[in-house]
Amino acid sequence: MTDSPKRSHGRKAIKLTAQPTDLMAPAPLAHVWTARVITLMPGTFPGILGESLTGKALREGRWQLETINLRDYGVGKHKNVDDTPAGGGAGMVLRPDVVGRAIEDATGGTRGNWPILYMSPRGKRIDQEMARTLSACDGVTILCGRFEGVDERVLEHYGIQEVSLGDFVMTGGEIAAHALLDATVRLIPGVLGNAESIEEESFSNGRLEHGQYTRPAVWKGREIPEVLMSGHHGKVADWRKEESERITRERRPDLLE
Amino acid sequence: MTDSPKRSHGRKAIKLTAQPTDLMAPAPLAHVWTARVITLMPGTFPGILGESLTGKALREGRWQLETINLRDYGVGKHKNVDDTPAGGGAGMVLRPDVVGRAIEDATGGTRGNWPILYMSPRGKRIDQEMARTLSACDGVTILCGRFEGVDERVLEHYGIQEVSLGDFVMTGGEIAAHALLDATVRLIPGVLGNAESIEEESFSNGRLEHGQYTRPAVWKGREIPEVLMSGHHGKVADWRKEESERITRERRPDLLE
Repeated sequence: MTDSPKRSHGRKAIKLTAQPTDLMAPAPLAHVWTARVITLMPGTFPGILGESLTGKALREGRWQLETINLRDYGVGKHKNVDDTPAGGGAGMVLRPDVVGRAIEDATGGTRGNWPILYMSPRGKRIDQEMARTLSACDGVTILCGRFEGVDERVLEHYGIQEVSLGDFVMTGGEIAAHALLDATVRLIPGVLGNAESIEEESFSNGRLEHGQYTRPAVWKGREIPEVLMSGHHGKVADWRKEESERITRERRPDLLE
Repeated sequence: MTDSPKRSHGRKAIKLTAQPTDLMAPAPLAHVWTARVITLMPGTFPGILGESLTGKALREGRWQLETINLRDYGVGKHKNVDDTPAGGGAGMVLRPDVVGRAIEDATGGTRGNWPILYMSPRGKRIDQEMARTLSACDGVTILCGRFEGVDERVLEHYGIQEVSLGDFVMTGGEIAAHALLDATVRLIPGVLGNAESIEEESFSNGRLEHGQYTRPAVWKGREIPEVLMSGHHGKVADWRKEESERITRERRPDLLE
């Protein structure tokens, strides 16, 4: 069906071998959280996700990433993936038959709780709770749009959840998929070295984070708040809690409701 | 001051030459919208922004991208950029002196309306209006955080605007910077080929976009809505407007307020 196999990143799940397979042995990485991304730009993955914490976790096999090149499912000798919108208008729309075949291939071998998401400004906005929920799934299949979007029937037929990065429009879904995966993967157990880091940060407790300070103690005449230098843990904790609430009240009163 | 010069992408603004410079001649690309990104991961730019529409526009000189490697401003022989948080706690905080020097270098030669932004979940959320405003500026300087964030005094001293991708936490600001730049650059005149595409899409009129359909007319027993096949432009426009309002009412009633 496809010209090129799925590309996978990090540790490989499958090795070609002349040895007979032990069918009872668990498949390597069969239980590792896996992202399958359907995209016209497979070369943009893992991209930034291959660096830093998420990249280290990818190399350590704490999650897996596979890209599915939508172009491989195109129709005709030019492998067309899109066509003009029914009813007229600017731009091009991704064809349901093309996207449908890619989705059916991508969902082969998925297991357990494994949602299919479509990155779209019409979708539910990504938040920390969504990232937490997705990190507890077995994996996720992400469809990245381009052009004017995807035929509506595909979304209906496969029960695809539309997910949005915010109230703005981008040239495609790839950057949004990166953002979603970054936010999700860092919550997979073992990815962040220090569990405390998760506890303290913005949104973990429904508040924005207090300000942070470090050396030097005085910089351009500005001093670190005295309480932080006091060595009094209780007072530091109180100050941080108050600051966190003050900043949240000023900037995002909606979070306090 | 720095070990490596700013890296620039797309057309180069400066060419080395043995010829005397005509000081009255306008500097090449002096009036081109420019993004300067301060980051510990300069290699992740332009990344996806170097592809597709934004990449084409970069190569055509419709915008410019420069990266400033924060590491070059680090202190000591290890070029440290961070230190432990005053008052204790997990993680590391970017030092104000290090970030300050990078910002002062980055803002040299900026002109007109040129905000400094810091990508942070505590910030104002990116929306289409913000992208529009930024695309009308002369340029933007973006500070990408890592670790537990940046010393609060830096944000105060330079009047830096905190900008957020949404209510979730990422491993760093780089992906958020990509998202902001993608949304902004595509609104720079001449970047999108077809002005109509901007008019019709989500948020341009404060509504989510109606569903789109394309060939084949019947797919898995699902038909394209009849009105879109009617050839009656007025009825198509009415249907799309109604659909757009229905979807917005169902999914994002807050946009209708």
